[in-house]
Amino acid sequence: MAAHRQPTIAAIGEFGFLRRLLPRLPAGPDVVLGPGDDCAVVRFGNRNVLVTTDALVEHVHFERSWMKPRQIGRKAYLVNASDIASMGGRPRFCVVATAAPADFPAADLEQIHRGLAQAAAETGARVVGGNLSRARELSLSVTLLGAAPRRPVRRSGARSGDLLFVTGTLGEAAAGLRRLQRDSAARGAFVRRFLEPRPRLRAGELLAAEGVASAMIDISDGLLQDLRHLCAASGVGAEVEAGAVPCPPRLGRRALGLALAGGEDYELLFTVRQRDLKRLATLHSRLGCRLTRIGRIVSKSAGLQVLDARANEMNIEELGFDHFARARG
Amino acid sequence: MAAHRQPTIAAIGEFGFLRRLLPRLPAGPDVVLGPGDDCAVVRFGNRNVLVTTDALVEHVHFERSWMKPRQIGRKAYLVNASDIASMGGRPRFCVVATAAPADFPAADLEQIHRGLAQAAAETGARVVGGNLSRARELSLSVTLLGAAPRRPVRRSGARSGDLLFVTGTLGEAAAGLRRLQRDSAARGAFVRRFLEPRPRLRAGELLAAEGVASAMIDISDGLLQDLRHLCAASGVGAEVEAGAVPCPPRLGRRALGLALAGGEDYELLFTVRQRDLKRLATLHSRLGCRLTRIGRIVSKSAGLQVLDARANEMNIEELGFDHFARARG
Repeated sequence: MAAHRQPTIAAIGEFGFLRRLLPRLPAGPDVVLGPGDDCAVVRFGNRNVLVTTDALVEHVHFERSWMKPRQIGRKAYLVNASDIASMGGRPRFCVVATAAPADFPAADLEQIHRGLAQAAAETGARVVGGNLSRARELSLSVTLLGAAPRRPVRRSGARSGDLLFVTGTLGEAAAGLRRLQRDSAARGAFVRRFLEPRPRLRAGELLAAEGVASAMIDISDGLLQDLRHLCAASGVGAEVEAGAVPCPPRLGRRALGLALAGGEDYELLFTVRQRDLKRLATLHSRLGCRLTRIGRIVSKSAGLQVLDARANEMNIEELGFDHFARARG
Repeated sequence: MAAHRQPTIAAIGEFGFLRRLLPRLPAGPDVVLGPGDDCAVVRFGNRNVLVTTDALVEHVHFERSWMKPRQIGRKAYLVNASDIASMGGRPRFCVVATAAPADFPAADLEQIHRGLAQAAAETGARVVGGNLSRARELSLSVTLLGAAPRRPVRRSGARSGDLLFVTGTLGEAAAGLRRLQRDSAARGAFVRRFLEPRPRLRAGELLAAEGVASAMIDISDGLLQDLRHLCAASGVGAEVEAGAVPCPPRLGRRALGLALAGGEDYELLFTVRQRDLKRLATLHSRLGCRLTRIGRIVSKSAGLQVLDARANEMNIEELGFDHFARARG
């Protein structure tokens, strides 16, 4: 039967599309982990290499009026570094495909690339190549290669009974984004959080090296959306205690919503087996960040629930930012 | 002194910008070859890995009306494979950052990715990951990782006295592009050449493995433009015999111009030491393509010259396609 209206990406959504497409890609030798996780893992000789790619697109992810060129470059790199962190890897080499309008100032483009190179250097990586195309809007597609840990932490390792943790605090970046959308000159701690993610590389690497995290993902699309990805990959459900979610009270009454569904946090969401809790406690001081237990993994049939202080299920409306399903700002 | 008008990318051009930017990127350990060649070479353990990235952007490199979605995906991959070929490497793994308008048909996007995955599989590589963003125009930024040969062939190895060769034939793809620009429904051999590059992977790999090519580059921006890159990297000049350039007579009186400056050929341009000519002749039948000697490398001071049948210097006007310096069709 012919469809009368062709489904668009907006109708299917980014995740829907990737879910539909990626499993159909043929696997092959030396592909340790194919599409569907934060990074792919491929093999060169006796080394496992992490590969991830992510784009920063003007008018979708940012406006030029919000940030300095250097910050655009930094952010384009850092969101990729966060994907390396979530597998427990170490950033090594990156390339960037840049597209820019013909009338874009060369000096600004240079600053973008300096920001990118500097952020890479700060995390131990190097920009080794690039490409420049003309386009109607500015975009940076960064591909980052990382050294994989002995056992990269996947999204798929969570089991019922595991406990659920996040690093740092949630919701501030999303609050910063909303301020910028109202006033492109807005500044302050929330805006800084949005403009400059701090990928949890040290925490990710230690959690992987010590074998403490059973599953891990970075929070880019919002806690619930990324938890949903983790649950889907692991074939489990989850309970999140709303009162435990680390969102600063300064965010006001929107705090929980921003923390659950705002996105742009670039914190790590991970699960730990009960038997490994003591080892996590030992590790805590070396992770370089706050750690909060926010819930637990349950069976798949229980689904994904957010519980209030009386352990009653809350109504989840917003499930994270999907570029296509929800227009921004 | 402050500039009164900020230079734009259009004014500086893609190559000018990359030339200005890339040497400033900090080098680091395990970077065998940094930015500035067709691929970077990085080290993981005891393996050298080739990395290249290139984007295919709607309205800049193609129009949707010219080709089927599958062909868009194929081409996005194949132009990257050509960069791997020019270093003598073997394609292994690729990732793709796709940007598309929200109303883009999901079925078309699926076909694009199928075309890409199929082209990858045909050359022994696998698509291991991807990302999807919203954008105003369709673009595919592919990053391809390759297994490096023992000695990757660089642009910088040419010396005065080396002879200059190209694989295949030149000018047809550019003629095909011009036909499409006049009539998006145009078909035929030239159009096919433009729509579907045939990266010279076998030739590149053999030329590198046998140590026969002293310098190599793939021809994407036009013979003269890419020869200019090779000469600049090697610190040499070159003489091209116009009569020797392999351009099909069917191209008519524009043949030489299209072959010299049209671009989109994705053939290999390489240099060979005089002492290695016999080894090249022995190798020829295994390369899987036509091979033509088109000139020789001379000293840097002689510059880049095209000689007519009487060995007089011809006037070179067009020096290849630069996305920013020259607007297309």
